[in-house]
Amino acid sequence: MTQTSSSPVLPAPIPAIVLVRPQMGENIGAAARAMWNFGLDHMRVVAPRDGWPSQSAVAMASGAGRLLDEAQHCADLPSALADCDFTFATTARGRDLTKPVYSPEAAMKLAAEKISAGQRVAVLFGPERAGLENEDIAQANAIVSVPVNPKFASLNLAQCVLLMSYEWMRAQGDVTHEVTEMAGTDWAKGAEVDHLARHYEERLEEAGFFYPEHKTTSMKLNLRNMWSRMPMTRADVQMLHGILRQMVRWKEKG
Amino acid sequence: MTQTSSSPVLPAPIPAIVLVRPQMGENIGAAARAMWNFGLDHMRVVAPRDGWPSQSAVAMASGAGRLLDEAQHCADLPSALADCDFTFATTARGRDLTKPVYSPEAAMKLAAEKISAGQRVAVLFGPERAGLENEDIAQANAIVSVPVNPKFASLNLAQCVLLMSYEWMRAQGDVTHEVTEMAGTDWAKGAEVDHLARHYEERLEEAGFFYPEHKTTSMKLNLRNMWSRMPMTRADVQMLHGILRQMVRWKEKG
Repeated sequence: MTQTSSSPVLPAPIPAIVLVRPQMGENIGAAARAMWNFGLDHMRVVAPRDGWPSQSAVAMASGAGRLLDEAQHCADLPSALADCDFTFATTARGRDLTKPVYSPEAAMKLAAEKISAGQRVAVLFGPERAGLENEDIAQANAIVSVPVNPKFASLNLAQCVLLMSYEWMRAQGDVTHEVTEMAGTDWAKGAEVDHLARHYEERLEEAGFFYPEHKTTSMKLNLRNMWSRMPMTRADVQMLHGILRQMVRWKEKG
Repeated sequence: MTQTSSSPVLPAPIPAIVLVRPQMGENIGAAARAMWNFGLDHMRVVAPRDGWPSQSAVAMASGAGRLLDEAQHCADLPSALADCDFTFATTARGRDLTKPVYSPEAAMKLAAEKISAGQRVAVLFGPERAGLENEDIAQANAIVSVPVNPKFASLNLAQCVLLMSYEWMRAQGDVTHEVTEMAGTDWAKGAEVDHLARHYEERLEEAGFFYPEHKTTSMKLNLRNMWSRMPMTRADVQMLHGILRQMVRWKEKG
């Protein structure tokens, strides 16, 4: 549903991504893709330079075209923010405006808190070339600034939307876990590692590996220490047993 | 300096961004811009489809062209990783390989820790269409996976590089230290692990380990994946070479 009414309604417990006077349809389409990659699907478009709807936006948005169909087209910023309780303005540089400045992470955590408390939140992005005007920023409650390399700060509109959407998804839960994809196996138990260590020690003893004799003790210790330090799965342990057995079989065949 | 030698050298305390078989020059240029936005400027390009140097990469990289001039051009992945101590592989989906999986945030924190402890770290990105192959991932120590909307996971190469570079910059803030007591040895470099993997593969081939034949490929992949997953020191690698050599010597004595 495209609408030009002055009071759009946020449908879901997510922030609205508000593109203010975007110039190129391609960038609007790319922003839609960036949003949907991280589960955001509520877009508002304020006074796009080339009109609305935009065929070039649709062409670029493939797979995220629904966001454009459902985007709210607003004539000006006040109407886009009419139903919002809290608005962040993204900006790359200082503006001589007294306003709290958040990192993307802190901003999206705050957005998540406000939204879960029932508030409506918007995030503003300015036109490609110059970004938001001070008059736009003055309508926001806070600034979000992406920490970029001061020697090269060239984020485009869709990249900026991407980073904010990514931080929104991160703020949803704690996605900082490290897990191991186990591919149908499990970590080896202590007894299995011990059995492996003894298997190698016995066969290597027979094969004359522990030489010269005065180094035998430290060589065995180092080998034992290596096995216990390795994060081995049951499949690894079986493979390592199999390698040794095959080498012995090969020897016995002569 | 473009080079095809097998041992590139990391100049700075930052991770190397390694583009594996990238297809479009435009995407290489966009990746360079994404890196430099967050202060990363060490790129390696492995077997780019359209050759190297790439005019289309240069045209796209405007402002970050220096990264392409200085990028290291490598013929294959082992030579790109020869001097690296720890490698992350970025991948969007499960791979049936037993390997730790990190979020971008956790991965770049770990990278920062390893780098501050003097290690060299690489982050691999696959070709645009299909991403990294399992054979590539088996050469990495860990996987990084961006948490995307399961209904729409369409990050392109430069966006993926952008998010990882952004997390690298974020990780520069707070780095927690974890050190390993090294007992007079050092972590094995990529080239050493690769050499070990090939040594085992060759001898085990001779010994008839890879049997039955239809399982040969997956057995080799699992073995390769195990070596790259293990946190091996140089002393470990020497011991593992020694074990295999001794088994062969034992066989030859009859």
